[in-house]
Amino acid sequence: MTVDLFDEPSDTREEILAATYRALRRHGYAELTIQRIGDEFEKSQSLIYHHYEDKDDLVLACLEFMLERFQTEFVDAEIEAPRAALETTIDLLLVTDPDPDRLAFHRTLVDLRAQVSHDPTFAEHFARSDRLFQDRLAAILAAGVDRGTFQALDPDRVATLLFTTITGAFYRDATSDDRAWVDDLREELDEYLEMRVYA
Amino acid sequence: MTVDLFDEPSDTREEILAATYRALRRHGYAELTIQRIGDEFEKSQSLIYHHYEDKDDLVLACLEFMLERFQTEFVDAEIEAPRAALETTIDLLLVTDPDPDRLAFHRTLVDLRAQVSHDPTFAEHFARSDRLFQDRLAAILAAGVDRGTFQALDPDRVATLLFTTITGAFYRDATSDDRAWVDDLREELDEYLEMRVYA
Repeated sequence: MTVDLFDEPSDTREEILAATYRALRRHGYAELTIQRIGDEFEKSQSLIYHHYEDKDDLVLACLEFMLERFQTEFVDAEIEAPRAALETTIDLLLVTDPDPDRLAFHRTLVDLRAQVSHDPTFAEHFARSDRLFQDRLAAILAAGVDRGTFQALDPDRVATLLFTTITGAFYRDATSDDRAWVDDLREELDEYLEMRVYA
Repeated sequence: MTVDLFDEPSDTREEILAATYRALRRHGYAELTIQRIGDEFEKSQSLIYHHYEDKDDLVLACLEFMLERFQTEFVDAEIEAPRAALETTIDLLLVTDPDPDRLAFHRTLVDLRAQVSHDPTFAEHFARSDRLFQDRLAAILAAGVDRGTFQALDPDRVATLLFTTITGAFYRDATSDDRAWVDDLREELDEYLEMRVYA
């Protein structure tokens, strides 16, 4: 995932969401306030209140915006060569050596997923987000099975293992200071793909 | 993992840590205060200050206590039958259908891992915790290879994939309201063990 989704906001709404993202990165969810979002926003703070009710409304709109962007740029793309598509998707999602910006983005996402205890709307959002990426993997696997590039397999089952493993890597990477496991994971995931997926 | 680690505190220190855990569960990390820990503690609040410097000191001691308990009860056990030990460990760690208490415990752990942005000590703790469980899986795999119950494999690599997948399941389960993927994951993980691990 990229962190430059907010680089070129095209209207006031996107400027507000970009400001929300920057404020989240800087302060974390617990310390986030509309005032702090306003500090990251170049126009009048009253515009924020005009568009959004409260902090959670803004944060969820920000997450929703990112998910729509990912969907357009990445999930809706045509699957031309299934093996290349699978490898590209895994490379995109599987953390290997994130730069500080991307790591901060990942930590922000873990911080937001942790909000589920006080606001179930976050659990709904992340269920939808997980589903989107996992279904993309399943669609690529199904395309490979159809074309005989992949073995006969249950695309949903294999996609579930792949996406859950990638999610585990994301979470470990964002919240532990150990990276010694990363190469082993990549190698073993390749071994699994060779045994289970590639024809 | 179980949540009854704090059921029978044996001294004042354990009573303080049990109170910390209950307060964390109730309020989340962001809203946790020494006052709120004191509210869960039956003795004088001054005892807390006598033992611990601040909130993070208490939370990290609480995590450390849980990890030591897990280590004694589970990680240090003799490996008698590697396949049974592997299955028991996966059953213990892999979330399937947590009761509300256990789910609350998992959400508390995600909340604490999310604190890494403001306190790197959390990243150290969770790196150590991950390492403990992953190394236990590797030791079981190595024992199975030695005894010919398992295929020739690199125990660290396979343990890394298993533990990362289990961690991903834990994180998804705690932070999304979708559980439709759980059965697929379990079935595909069994498929992987059949192909890759069992002789």
